[in-house]
Amino acid sequence: MYLEKINSPADLAGLSVTELELLAAEIRELVIETVSVNGGHLGASLGTVELILALHRVFKVPEDRLLFDVGHQAYAHKILTGRREFFKTLRRHGGCAGFPAAWESEFDVGASGHAGTAISTAVGLSAAFGRSGSPHRAVAVVGDGALNCGMSLEGMINASRDGKNLIVVLNDNKMSIQENVGGMAHYLNCLISGSSYNKFKMTVKRLLKTLPRHEAIHRFIKRTEDLLKGIFLPGIVFEQLGFRYIGPINGHSLPDLLRTLERVRELEGPILVHVITEKGRGYEFARQEPARYHGVAGFDRATGRLKKSEGPTFSNAFGDAMVRLGEAHPEVAAISAAMVSGTGLNRFQQKFPGRCFDVGICEEHAVTFAGGLAAGGMRPVCAIYSTFLQRAFDSIYHDVVLPKQPVILALDRGGAVEDGPTHHGIYDLGFLRELPGLTVMAPRSERELELMLDFAYELKAPAAVRYPRGGSPADPAETVPPLELGRAEVVRAGGDGPVIWAMGPEVYTALEAARLLEVAGKGSCTVVNARFLAPFDGETARRLAASGRPVATVEDHRITGGLASALDEALADAPHGKVLHFGWPDRVIPHGCVGELKREFGLTAEAVAEKLGSL
Amino acid sequence: MYLEKINSPADLAGLSVTELELLAAEIRELVIETVSVNGGHLGASLGTVELILALHRVFKVPEDRLLFDVGHQAYAHKILTGRREFFKTLRRHGGCAGFPAAWESEFDVGASGHAGTAISTAVGLSAAFGRSGSPHRAVAVVGDGALNCGMSLEGMINASRDGKNLIVVLNDNKMSIQENVGGMAHYLNCLISGSSYNKFKMTVKRLLKTLPRHEAIHRFIKRTEDLLKGIFLPGIVFEQLGFRYIGPINGHSLPDLLRTLERVRELEGPILVHVITEKGRGYEFARQEPARYHGVAGFDRATGRLKKSEGPTFSNAFGDAMVRLGEAHPEVAAISAAMVSGTGLNRFQQKFPGRCFDVGICEEHAVTFAGGLAAGGMRPVCAIYSTFLQRAFDSIYHDVVLPKQPVILALDRGGAVEDGPTHHGIYDLGFLRELPGLTVMAPRSERELELMLDFAYELKAPAAVRYPRGGSPADPAETVPPLELGRAEVVRAGGDGPVIWAMGPEVYTALEAARLLEVAGKGSCTVVNARFLAPFDGETARRLAASGRPVATVEDHRITGGLASALDEALADAPHGKVLHFGWPDRVIPHGCVGELKREFGLTAEAVAEKLGSL
Repeated sequence: MYLEKINSPADLAGLSVTELELLAAEIRELVIETVSVNGGHLGASLGTVELILALHRVFKVPEDRLLFDVGHQAYAHKILTGRREFFKTLRRHGGCAGFPAAWESEFDVGASGHAGTAISTAVGLSAAFGRSGSPHRAVAVVGDGALNCGMSLEGMINASRDGKNLIVVLNDNKMSIQENVGGMAHYLNCLISGSSYNKFKMTVKRLLKTLPRHEAIHRFIKRTEDLLKGIFLPGIVFEQLGFRYIGPINGHSLPDLLRTLERVRELEGPILVHVITEKGRGYEFARQEPARYHGVAGFDRATGRLKKSEGPTFSNAFGDAMVRLGEAHPEVAAISAAMVSGTGLNRFQQKFPGRCFDVGICEEHAVTFAGGLAAGGMRPVCAIYSTFLQRAFDSIYHDVVLPKQPVILALDRGGAVEDGPTHHGIYDLGFLRELPGLTVMAPRSERELELMLDFAYELKAPAAVRYPRGGSPADPAETVPPLELGRAEVVRAGGDGPVIWAMGPEVYTALEAARLLEVAGKGSCTVVNARFLAPFDGETARRLAASGRPVATVEDHRITGGLASALDEALADAPHGKVLHFGWPDRVIPHGCVGELKREFGLTAEAVAEKLGSL
Repeated sequence: MYLEKINSPADLAGLSVTELELLAAEIRELVIETVSVNGGHLGASLGTVELILALHRVFKVPEDRLLFDVGHQAYAHKILTGRREFFKTLRRHGGCAGFPAAWESEFDVGASGHAGTAISTAVGLSAAFGRSGSPHRAVAVVGDGALNCGMSLEGMINASRDGKNLIVVLNDNKMSIQENVGGMAHYLNCLISGSSYNKFKMTVKRLLKTLPRHEAIHRFIKRTEDLLKGIFLPGIVFEQLGFRYIGPINGHSLPDLLRTLERVRELEGPILVHVITEKGRGYEFARQEPARYHGVAGFDRATGRLKKSEGPTFSNAFGDAMVRLGEAHPEVAAISAAMVSGTGLNRFQQKFPGRCFDVGICEEHAVTFAGGLAAGGMRPVCAIYSTFLQRAFDSIYHDVVLPKQPVILALDRGGAVEDGPTHHGIYDLGFLRELPGLTVMAPRSERELELMLDFAYELKAPAAVRYPRGGSPADPAETVPPLELGRAEVVRAGGDGPVIWAMGPEVYTALEAARLLEVAGKGSCTVVNARFLAPFDGETARRLAASGRPVATVEDHRITGGLASALDEALADAPHGKVLHFGWPDRVIPHGCVGELKREFGLTAEAVAEKLGSL
């Protein structure tokens, strides 16, 4: 039992390599146990245990700064930095965050939920260290998937000036969340296999055979080989961009890691250390199926059986609708940024591999590439989680909205999610609603999502469909009336009670609130499914508000910018009664079970009914 | 006179190289003449004349698609594609756009005002061509500055799968708008000078001297050199990422260009053709000082004298304030994304070279790097044009706002600008206002900008200051009262007339409208300078609106998302009279002189007064 004695990285000082190896096993045990119960990111964090132990043994954190890109590989770091017990509350409301976060611990730097951010941050730290003459290092541990990200490469390019104190540890497990794609992945694989060097060596060897035998020639061959090795083999792409490349290193060998990192600590940056790790290391089920065990809701340790996911979900409905759309229209294409499975596109990918583009963690490219596909006559549907689409705001504007390309943006995970502030998709309606000519929709149910996809296809203009994680409480047999551009759907006629506007499955929250109010004798509410946030149905809003009944909005979005703003704007110059908004307030929303968050922030049917009932 | 016969690229077919060279001179003549009168981007477009002639001669546009990244290098393309006469209306209201734009010509693809977008778009086109079996090519002409952009690199990485029909022409003039920086620029320079290959060759040569003389050895040396040349020299970074690298080519030699491009047309992509051009080629003043003549308001052809810029500007005031701030606080740093001069940071750069970071065209990196500097104890001020900051929305959220880093964002060119839809900074308030804990300010005058910078410095929290191109009409002697967080400034008390809210120098538009109304006997207006959009002074808004006087907003921003929305939200549940909004409507705003645009869209004092007077 070594782990219970580790209360800070300083406690690692006395341990032998063997003891560190035992410690690694205990950390894995704690990670597996906790994630099996709480859910979380399993595979990546199991792969980095030795690496993180070695980093904390060699560097002096937090004086040296340790960053993770992204943070789901960093559980061992959390466990070693005074959060061993706290870690057991992983992802629980009020408990340990799923990612390193400066607001949780002085051992963490910034936020680390979006890929591609660590190198740029570390270059900033290195520049600041350089200026103050600090000898400390900024060490960014970057997954190979995150290296695909344009900003990682921007950071690397900029390290040549300000990277003297910078070390990039490339944690190469050959995967993003799914398998890696593209030129960078190919290049990294060549580095590991040494294949291009080997091919070159073979050619040289063939050539050398044409030489006469002679001792001077033998010496020459030996020295040429060394020279070539030094110049040609090791990470020439990184070397040419100004980095010193060291690797590849076995990321599960503590002796190798310690020896290498100790040497690296003495060198001037920027340095890239290429470490090979195995996703899921130490838990056989996860090792065998790393994509399946990347992020899990929990599982049975003994059998590996994953906790059942809920019934129908928006992601599944989207996936089904895409297959249908793809069958009907040969020009329909799907684009994912390393989230084929998460967005429900697996079946589309299987059926139409030539029309499914997984571009890796490159959201900007994904959207602009979609614009290019559309310019070439295809009909791309770009499925990206709401929080990650934030990175592509300018691409949406410049390459889709301005040239009026008929690209469909499918925003999955719109609304609050368990992963917390870095992942909440609660800003999307605000930034999308601003863009001229972009139609923005949100379906209340899986069935309505299908209709909206079809509608967007027929629209032949830029469109966005936004829906949350999980499913709706809709009755599958429920009928959904056809869509009309810019028209809301009155789902409950009501009469004398408040008018409640809602978007997405919050429509059912509104309906339940209406029922509660009616039962309580507080009048009969009208409930409206906004359907379109842009163009917004201001006419219906004004008509329903004219009698002076209270008007409320319910949305899984920040109050500023979304449905509440659209309604306020529509009613600004029209007669109306009291106005109330239910949504996420003007503060950072923490992580935790979404149901609990909604209770805390008054976004349940009960809370809505109570507030409206007390008017 | 060849040019007058060229009405489409097909007309180039019969011309000899000598005739093409004469045509090049005529195109340069037209570019210089037009830009000297209308203003525009001079240097880059003078550098690409031969390249564009060769491209149009070899490829069949628009079946082959030709993209420019960014579009300010593309004047010759416009002139050759049926817009010779139209080009003389360059940048005029209703005239020829300053950038290629799909909405202007079938020869243009998408929008091309933001760097880094062309490769991704072209990969999309290539994928679409590939699917439909089309033999056509997507040719992206990319400036070396734009290659720094993360999205360019994302596009290149993704070309390995979908780039069979892709040709990237790297137009290397060794500059962004200013001199290039960082690892990529260094690498390109090495390619041109062949310096790393030369170094390597020297070492090999030294080694070879140790060998005995022998004919077989001589043969061996020769073959080794060829092998090394083939594998080591030519653009190994691009080759490793999956591109075939060809170059460097003299971009002013039509024979070289034609020969190379004809060969390239027959090859399978992805291919990168490295072309060396000279910015300002053919106009000596521009050639000597390429940064000064990059974008100009007009100039005297004979003397090269540039049209006088206006008096004091916000950019200059910002630059002065930064020098003062830098003198007072040694931890203040400035960050620019290839716009040191445009943002007024030249003097700061001269005085504090170690604290001025020009990161190249990398807005995401710029902001996240700023977060890193702040985490390292510095106080970074990140000066980026509003339209380009759109690319960094997620960086602002993830790396500044969430970790509460005291980064100051200085948004220059906030509001409409002459360059048109790709460059209007009219969405920034909407996306910034959404972010929790980000203070958003807009100064009415240069003096207030200084106060706001100081205020942001003292705030020690994420803050944004937004101001337009040019200057304010403020009297320099005017006093500006001190700032208080979230408090508006009542600049005209008024009484019985409407309440006019404004932001930025539109405050003076509001004051003038108030004067006109008073003169017309329409009552005495109250004019309020909002100062803070977040947190917005809802209390003052409600107090002033309570009497039922009409309330108006005037802003150089889209009506949705900015001041108008903030006011509507503040008044939603409060008693108020009629509400009117003056700002940019829900459509794409074209290019042209900003004064004319404001007249067209009713954003002048006269228009505001007329509308308010007729209530």
